[in-house]
Amino acid sequence: WIHASAPTTNVQPTLNGIAYISGYQDWKIISTTDRFDNHTMRVIFGNDVAIKAIAENNIHPWPDGTIFAKGAWAQQVDENGDTKTGQFIQVEFMIKDHQKYASTEGWGFARWRGTDLKPYGKDAAFTSECTGCHKPVRENDYVYSFPLTGQQ
Amino acid sequence: WIHASAPTTNVQPTLNGIAYISGYQDWKIISTTDRFDNHTMRVIFGNDVAIKAIAENNIHPWPDGTIFAKGAWAQQVDENGDTKTGQFIQVEFMIKDHQKYASTEGWGFARWRGTDLKPYGKDAAFTSECTGCHKPVRENDYVYSFPLTGQQ
Ligand code: HEC
Ligand code: HEC
Repeated sequence: WIHASAPTTNVQPTLNGIAYISGYQDWKIISTTDRFDNHTMRVIFGNDVAIKAIAENNIHPWPDGTIFAKGAWAQQVDENGDTKTGQFIQVEFMIKDHQKYASTEGWGFARWRGTDLKPYGKDAAFTSECTGCHKPVRENDYVYSFPLTGQQ
Repeated sequence: WIHASAPTTNVQPTLNGIAYISGYQDWKIISTTDRFDNHTMRVIFGNDVAIKAIAENNIHPWPDGTIFAKGAWAQQVDENGDTKTGQFIQVEFMIKDHQKYASTEGWGFARWRGTDLKPYGKDAAFTSECTGCHKPVRENDYVYSFPLTGQQ
């Protein structure tokens, strides 16, 4: 039910040097959110390393190689009243490599917007928005979508 | 589809003096989240003041009287494979009153846990957990669930 987002050839890397990762729509879904206020659906996917780490409860910290993708789509309601993903809005990634991404808390942050998958941000410092917002969950290795202590 | 959570008589107020608010399950739903990792569903409700503020785009800041409720339930899958709310886990509230709750960023924070609706926290300082986690969205008047700038 997750529509192809866009052609994924010739997608430019982000300004912090991260190349686009295609195929995340086939990863395992960790959570989905329907936002009725702004008519969006968000889906969070984890790659194999993430899913294995969850199964083995090996998430403090998450192992290098873990990748999360968070996609946002316009919400579409079909004939049965079921909500489906409509037009693609953006995709964000967090890629764990504690050495390579040491300056951004051990994660490579990347966001591409729109059906033309335009890299987000004016310069590489866009990542401070990401790290700023993910800091409250530093006890969770900066990841919101897994066992939030005191938050379940 | 949202099960009655628990008897709501004789519920103790939180340690920061907030009385339990019953009937939030009848408010308008702003968003729902299915969490497949820990098998929970979360539903965020807004009271009439919140819904009117959204309609009028009057949310910077949210008007006094705004209330958000966030409920968490165990996830239950029915015969049709549809997910429904199962056992009640907790409910949290944010109640806007910029004077009364000036010391906690203008919001009264409250959480009750379990089917016996036990007030959360050891003392009134539990609110620092809430404000700490909601601080990254201070530009949004500490609310996550509405137009997140740069986050749609
Ligand atoms: C306004 C706050 C905010 C900003 C800014 C932000 N995030 Fe997030 N992010 C969240 C929240 C909250 C979640 C949890 C899921 C949800 O509520 O949508 C999340 C979830 C994610 C996830 C899924 C993994 C997880 O932690 O649950 C990824 C990937 C992600 N964000 C990437 C990014 C990237 C890349 C940027 C910057 C370009 C960014 N985020 C900026 C708040 C933010
Ligand atoms: C670990 C981080 C964290 C902590 C601690 C936290 N919150 Fe939140 N809260 C969030 C996030 C993220 C959201 C957005 C919805 C979601 O992802 O579930 C949210 C949403 C809410 C909402 C719905 C309105 C909104 O902002 O979207 C309420 C109400 C709420 N929280 C109350 C509380 C209360 C009360 C406490 C403390 C007793 C608390 N929260 C502690 C992260 C946190």
